Amino acid sequence: MRTVSHDYEINLLGNDEQQRRLSRIYSAMRSAGITSALLRDNADIYYLTGRVFRGFAYVSPALETPIYFVRRPNHLTCSTPGALHLIKRPEEIADIIEKLGIDPGESFGLELDAIPYSEAVRLAAVFGRAPEANMWPVMRKARSVKTERELAMLRECGVKQSLVYERIPHLYREGMTDIEFQIEIERALRLEGCLGQFRMAGADMEIFMGNLLTGENGDTPSTYDFAMGGAGADPSLPVGADGTVIRPGAPVMVDMNGNFNGYMTDMTRMYVAGEPSAEAIHACKVSQKICAEAAAMMIPGVKAADIYNRALEIATAEGLEKYFMGHRYHAGFVGHGIGIEVNESPVLAPRSRDILQAGNVIAVEPKFVIPGIGAVGIENTYIVRAEWPAERITTAREDFMRLD
Amino acid sequence: MRTVSHDYEINLLGNDEQQRRLSRIYSAMRSAGITSALLRDNADIYYLTGRVFRGFAYVSPALETPIYFVRRPNHLTCSTPGALHLIKRPEEIADIIEKLGIDPGESFGLELDAIPYSEAVRLAAVFGRAPEANMWPVMRKARSVKTERELAMLRECGVKQSLVYERIPHLYREGMTDIEFQIEIERALRLEGCLGQFRMAGADMEIFMGNLLTGENGDTPSTYDFAMGGAGADPSLPVGADGTVIRPGAPVMVDMNGNFNGYMTDMTRMYVAGEPSAEAIHACKVSQKICAEAAAMMIPGVKAADIYNRALEIATAEGLEKYFMGHRYHAGFVGHGIGIEVNESPVLAPRSRDILQAGNVIAVEPKFVIPGIGAVGIENTYIVRAEWPAERITTAREDFMRLD
Repeated sequence: MRTVSHDYEINLLGNDEQQRRLSRIYSAMRSAGITSALLRDNADIYYLTGRVFRGFAYVSPALETPIYFVRRPNHLTCSTPGALHLIKRPEEIADIIEKLGIDPGESFGLELDAIPYSEAVRLAAVFGRAPEANMWPVMRKARSVKTERELAMLRECGVKQSLVYERIPHLYREGMTDIEFQIEIERALRLEGCLGQFRMAGADMEIFMGNLLTGENGDTPSTYDFAMGGAGADPSLPVGADGTVIRPGAPVMVDMNGNFNGYMTDMTRMYVAGEPSAEAIHACKVSQKICAEAAAMMIPGVKAADIYNRALEIATAEGLEKYFMGHRYHAGFVGHGIGIEVNESPVLAPRSRDILQAGNVIAVEPKFVIPGIGAVGIENTYIVRAEWPAERITTAREDFMRLD
Repeated sequence: MRTVSHDYEINLLGNDEQQRRLSRIYSAMRSAGITSALLRDNADIYYLTGRVFRGFAYVSPALETPIYFVRRPNHLTCSTPGALHLIKRPEEIADIIEKLGIDPGESFGLELDAIPYSEAVRLAAVFGRAPEANMWPVMRKARSVKTERELAMLRECGVKQSLVYERIPHLYREGMTDIEFQIEIERALRLEGCLGQFRMAGADMEIFMGNLLTGENGDTPSTYDFAMGGAGADPSLPVGADGTVIRPGAPVMVDMNGNFNGYMTDMTRMYVAGEPSAEAIHACKVSQKICAEAAAMMIPGVKAADIYNRALEIATAEGLEKYFMGHRYHAGFVGHGIGIEVNESPVLAPRSRDILQAGNVIAVEPKFVIPGIGAVGIENTYIVRAEWPAERITTAREDFMRLD
């Protein structure tokens, strides 16, 4: 267990790394014609500073560094003179900005897809405006290409998550329910340093520590925008394990939390007590094949939609089309960007307009739900590199792992 | 472990219970002058139907039952003919409402404090409007007085959480860090049926499974609107345990997740390996005394602010004023409503305008942060009854529990 640094400097990234990220943000702001913005979404604040605080960061391509307006905690400092201001109410921001001689300019941005209506109206009113420009797609674009430091943190997640996934067979006991098995995996992940938190964009997305599916429960359609569903343990959180006893020969799909440092990898592996059926082995092999082909296609300039189409083509050629990404419900994608949040850009979907870039980090999850067998498929997280091939950072072995 | 019902009826509450809740919602809508509304926040959807789905519920005092517009999952049914519509885009709603001959009326409401700006604008545009009326305070008001069924679910949470809290001493091993100890408590809670999810209002609120504090870490100011802080295991989630080794004599404050069924109780208890100091015992006793006095004051018609003021008065009389609700940072409340979310109405704070009503469920958490000693204090959840006294539903014993 590490003990965290009690450094009070608000920018934990250091200046060079923050400048790298700021230049990505500024470039995306300029493309969108946004002259200044207040950021306050926790994921964006973490991206910008390497820590989460409650408050706002004012960013503008006209400024060298952000100006921080912090509500909590009250003990942070900033090495840049005049850049940190403790506030109680956002209305204090306008005065401070004015005293600093800063002009927000033509187009003032807020994360309009992330912050509540009332708050957006209140924040825009601080500058005498109505909400006008949307920083959410800007930040999504900036964050979709990771810096080397971000990639290092993602690799760390991949290593730790893979270590735990390889140990999962030792956590199984005969007669366990899916929930009981999941709880032991949660504990193993937490002891390895997993933070538990599952950061996602979208206020209606909810999950706790991930998804473990076995038996018919795998065919319960998803309530959320996840690839797989499951009834969950309670109708208040309808996703994942539902209390099904794990039967010999029944595939167990494990897709659990890979957040070890504020970034997260996404990995799914298959487990089974006893012998999996030939159909299950086949579906798992096809999933591996699609992952490998997707990875082989991952070079800068490739269309995200083309990877989805190739995945569907392989599934169809292997006779698994009607089970691809679900059976009673079909998810409309086969992969997604990942980083601070689990649902970032680019999206591997038929109508995606995303074009791959070096530094994208993409989870590929070709999964099948086969009636009478259950959910089968793996998932890997890849780094798109300037040079072929992409780098797989979820390194646990990909075949069915035996629980006995 | 229970296995969940695979009932597909969208309203899991039954008609009588749903009508009880609808009449609360309609009454609050009438007071606010709102003629119709679309609800879509997960907590509100769960309140209205007993399950979470992705989509919208159209409610209006002019209608007997809600009309459901469901995006996911795609397998739900409704016993009320014509009340459930599967949709892909919210723009489909206007047509359906019109075909049903329904007029949204003068004032159309949305949960403007909960849903993102872009979504609110899009949903209002469905009816050719701009966002105008705010359903968030309306739902907050409706949900602040629980039905008997909700109270039964909260009592169930209290029983289960108390059972686990009484077992916590058996989970301790000498030399553990706070994080390692917390992980064992998480597992015990999960095995008892805890769902893990921590539902909170406010997009910037984050926590994983609760807060365990020992040593100087208790005096790390909070980033979030929680009573206590803690540095957390990582700057991406700055709350709670930070890797501090649990020392003999050092108080350990445990404030973990009480969500066992979509509702949650809030309970804090103190633990110690070896002998606690006289100051720690005193602070714990004062906290118990404040809880008891607060509970004794809880009758319908009492001002929430008066309870806060009485709590502060006791703390002051006991010489603990400067440690009350924090030391380096002081939280501005001593208690809060709780139910589906951890931060509901009423709020026990000096400037609160809330007046207690029968059926309120209130967590009271008088806590102290004492330099050199750490965070000390307990927390109970109470049901306000028409007849005195209030009912304590977090029943674990309140004194320091010994870890050895």
